[in-house]
Amino acid sequence: MNRYDDIWIMAAQCPSRLGTVDVVTRFLKERGCYITEQQSFDDRLSGRFFIRTEFRPEEAGFDAAVFQTAFAERAAEFGMSFELTPPGRLMPVVIMVSKADHCLNDLLYRYRTGQLPIEIRAIVSNHPDLASLAEWHGIPYHHFPITAQTKSEQEALVREVIDASGAELVILARYMQVLSSEMCTRLSGRAINIHHSLLPGFKGARPYHQAYEKGVKLVGATAHYINDDLDEGPIITQGVEPVGHADYPEDLVAKGRDIECLTLARAVALHVERRVFLNTSRTVIFER
Amino acid sequence: MNRYDDIWIMAAQCPSRLGTVDVVTRFLKERGCYITEQQSFDDRLSGRFFIRTEFRPEEAGFDAAVFQTAFAERAAEFGMSFELTPPGRLMPVVIMVSKADHCLNDLLYRYRTGQLPIEIRAIVSNHPDLASLAEWHGIPYHHFPITAQTKSEQEALVREVIDASGAELVILARYMQVLSSEMCTRLSGRAINIHHSLLPGFKGARPYHQAYEKGVKLVGATAHYINDDLDEGPIITQGVEPVGHADYPEDLVAKGRDIECLTLARAVALHVERRVFLNTSRTVIFER
Amino acid sequence: MNRYDDIWIMAAQCPSRLGTVDVVTRFLKERGCYITEQQSFDDRLSGRFFIRTEFRPEEAGFDAAVFQTAFAERAAEFGMSFELTPPGRLMPVVIMVSKADHCLNDLLYRYRTGQLPIEIRAIVSNHPDLASLAEWHGIPYHHFPITAQTKSEQEALVREVIDASGAELVILARYMQVLSSEMCTRLSGRAINIHHSLLPGFKGARPYHQAYEKGVKLVGATAHYINDDLDEGPIITQGVEPVGHADYPEDLVAKGRDIECLTLARAVALHVERRVFLNTSRTVIFER
Amino acid sequence: MNRYDDIWIMAAQCPSRLGTVDVVTRFLKERGCYITEQQSFDDRLSGRFFIRTEFRPEEAGFDAAVFQTAFAERAAEFGMSFELTPPGRLMPVVIMVSKADHCLNDLLYRYRTGQLPIEIRAIVSNHPDLASLAEWHGIPYHHFPITAQTKSEQEALVREVIDASGAELVILARYMQVLSSEMCTRLSGRAINIHHSLLPGFKGARPYHQAYEKGVKLVGATAHYINDDLDEGPIITQGVEPVGHADYPEDLVAKGRDIECLTLARAVALHVERRVFLNTSRTVIFER
Repeated sequence: MNRYDDIWIMAAQCPSRLGTVDVVTRFLKERGCYITEQQSFDDRLSGRFFIRTEFRPEEAGFDAAVFQTAFAERAAEFGMSFELTPPGRLMPVVIMVSKADHCLNDLLYRYRTGQLPIEIRAIVSNHPDLASLAEWHGIPYHHFPITAQTKSEQEALVREVIDASGAELVILARYMQVLSSEMCTRLSGRAINIHHSLLPGFKGARPYHQAYEKGVKLVGATAHYINDDLDEGPIITQGVEPVGHADYPEDLVAKGRDIECLTLARAVALHVERRVFLNTSRTVIFER
Repeated sequence: MNRYDDIWIMAAQCPSRLGTVDVVTRFLKERGCYITEQQSFDDRLSGRFFIRTEFRPEEAGFDAAVFQTAFAERAAEFGMSFELTPPGRLMPVVIMVSKADHCLNDLLYRYRTGQLPIEIRAIVSNHPDLASLAEWHGIPYHHFPITAQTKSEQEALVREVIDASGAELVILARYMQVLSSEMCTRLSGRAINIHHSLLPGFKGARPYHQAYEKGVKLVGATAHYINDDLDEGPIITQGVEPVGHADYPEDLVAKGRDIECLTLARAVALHVERRVFLNTSRTVIFER
Repeated sequence: MNRYDDIWIMAAQCPSRLGTVDVVTRFLKERGCYITEQQSFDDRLSGRFFIRTEFRPEEAGFDAAVFQTAFAERAAEFGMSFELTPPGRLMPVVIMVSKADHCLNDLLYRYRTGQLPIEIRAIVSNHPDLASLAEWHGIPYHHFPITAQTKSEQEALVREVIDASGAELVILARYMQVLSSEMCTRLSGRAINIHHSLLPGFKGARPYHQAYEKGVKLVGATAHYINDDLDEGPIITQGVEPVGHADYPEDLVAKGRDIECLTLARAVALHVERRVFLNTSRTVIFER
Repeated sequence: MNRYDDIWIMAAQCPSRLGTVDVVTRFLKERGCYITEQQSFDDRLSGRFFIRTEFRPEEAGFDAAVFQTAFAERAAEFGMSFELTPPGRLMPVVIMVSKADHCLNDLLYRYRTGQLPIEIRAIVSNHPDLASLAEWHGIPYHHFPITAQTKSEQEALVREVIDASGAELVILARYMQVLSSEMCTRLSGRAINIHHSLLPGFKGARPYHQAYEKGVKLVGATAHYINDDLDEGPIITQGVEPVGHADYPEDLVAKGRDIECLTLARAVALHVERRVFLNTSRTVIFER
């Protein structure tokens, strides 16, 4: 049995104030919902409160719509925003890639084998290279070439695919284009990028070459939400890999692939399991 | 400011049943206590529920004794046991050692610099070697030699020191004697041992030599509660270290010291911060 | 440029004796070969010497056959066995699987993208499930069902495929059958298995379930050469992953997949790059 | 037995050229020296060659002075610089500290128990705080206060202690002063600093506070040779530690201590065992 076969998730946040946990837990008790896991955190520096609850309705006739409406009323008193995720829900996503296929290949494998609760609605690329990989998995592949001149037209096409697909999450799986500020704003909080360095070290292009020049002994990858400041969005998770003097730049590129795949997949899992909360420019992550 | 300067901790567990979280959180709300961090877990296999709450009384006149008595009544309905830990409390401990000093030295450093909320009441050893280290830190050192013939007499002396000291935790920091079954039972749930292997691999004596023979590529250390089955008590935490072909048994011993220190110190911190719960032969750990 | 585009590898071993390095390095110098990387190790416990050399012929007209014959003469004086690997050589391999596809999928990806210097000649399975995956990569897939009664016949068929393919390495990528003693002997030193535990902990079946029962805080995977003692062959490499109380057995299975893939791929890379040497029941590994 | 009780170490480097390994290994063979471990690396980007050899003289009457003179002649042909380290040699060091004691305490423990082949000749500080720690270990403690006005006078006093002590290595164990450019130049290649971040991320002051602001999920420490560009010298080794949303800046400071200690101790061990080679602004490290 999968752990989420009968488990609902509620993720919520609001300003700090006495009773923030109670408003959630009392409601669940009243509705006959058994809490199987719960984590909450109050950030004394930002003055915000975060809570994630997994629960199982124990009484017959649990009605999500009724539940949601009723809880919204209580939550309102606390200025609390919340999301309710039903058991087994697959989050619709769009993946953006360029030519490198390792992250895409990894996501597709996890998708195909049900390891990630996502439904990949479309793959978008500025290159045709990865079309056959998409095809084997039966996923529509949109090739939208880009040049300096056609950037905004291309982004319009990308946006259209995202909107039409109903995607709630956009995954930039080594998409080697800088998104426009407008696009970043539009996707704020729902687009995850993988950067191949331990940000904020080695921002920008060719981070492994920068790492080689500096002679660092650890390289890594950073999965973060995009924002309109390049490589500066809130960090979700980071992975690390030891390297040595015998690793030339091309070896760092090769060595980095695994950690990029793992870090991106981990960030996607955290996001779709509602474990990530935005807290100004940082994140709160309730890990399993 | 230390994170626990004004924070109370409540750790509780009981059989699984609707309302287990609510009974805690509602009470805290009623008493004007603000929950800063909370973690709960329901183990569907053992049918037990675990909860750890950090909170700050927000109203003047918080009275721990009154709080405790009142909550005990509610907890009783759920068969819930609980412990309440006030801000800044130092847990009284006794440390047991033989000749190896690395774990003791590490614990003493953390103790002296206030990194561990403990108060070391006494150090007990079957050898005189580490007396001067204890002396420099101003801690009573009891040297109780042991032979096969005097084992039970020696243990009686050890017990006396533990009892007289008021220790709530006994730390076996490389104490190279097997405790009697009676002693294990008596200290059940309140004595932490560090074993120098990744249990259950390499139980018993000379684990690094066993590891060398097997040619493993990772060695480690395991901090666990003792029970009367040698090296079999509930595991709290484990650490790991890569090794290679050029590491002879004596190198493994040397390499293992750091991970032993770190693993033991981490287990002690988890225990004194009330993050560890016994769950039959396993543990539930709410990590920060 | 790939690091091995113009690099030869010589791997050699012999009993310890004065001059063991010199016999290799002097020869290379005489033949105009420039050593780009070299590692040697003398095991004082087993009394054996191991050396791995990467070199680039600097003079025109390097003739491998002549080189090999000439060096064999010198090596003979030291009882030294050696292997010479030309630049860009792909080692022929056969992969054996059952139903689980994660390790196979991972190896196929690395193979397809040239990350592993192997040529997969055939995939053998006791189940038909992974045929389409093999097909997409254009690799012959042999389905040989097995029952207690047909074990030796099935192994004969497997042997035939291995022999016909010219495979120098057999990779057991979660092949869930115990090989016969005869088969193990035959494949000794050239068959790598991935076991999903930190051997010698949790030998045998269902190691993740054993790990859950014990309540360990780290799980792992072990890549090792097979021998006729189940799960006891010389260890090549091991990987590790932290787990917690909220990981049920099925979660450990899921969490372990990544570390199994990485550990097996790493062992294969070490083997095909001639970095692994058998040293009685242990291995010497010269890592990059 | 300690692994280095009868082992000499030769560390050498020179420009790349055919015969660089042979010049070392042939000489050792001629002199009856048995090579127990050897590692060499040719950096194709910098065009330099590095070699480290552990050996044991097998014939009676090994004379280091004669050996050294004779080898110097051969080495000269290759423009090769080299260092010869006799068995059991303790490198004389001076440690510089300010108020934080964790790295000093850790180094003193390893020193006292013979885990690091060093001899601590003096401890220098701009504060009096750690004098008693030095005293307990019987090491001279020099307290040289510093102000903006007295910086050069203070550095003159420090230099005097270093020179008088015969120190070959200066360890900056959380010495919170920026050394003058002149001092850096003077100590080039023989002074190791520990910086509490994963350089080049978070250079300069209060790196843990910077890390908190950025919301990184990994913090670390970097041990590097100092040069006259602050926090920019060649990196020797780096350590890393996961952190989370519940770690406030003061928690990062606390969590970072262990990794700082381990990383600095590791760098010192690598240096004194002659495993570190300067390669322009990077390092070559031959790890065990």
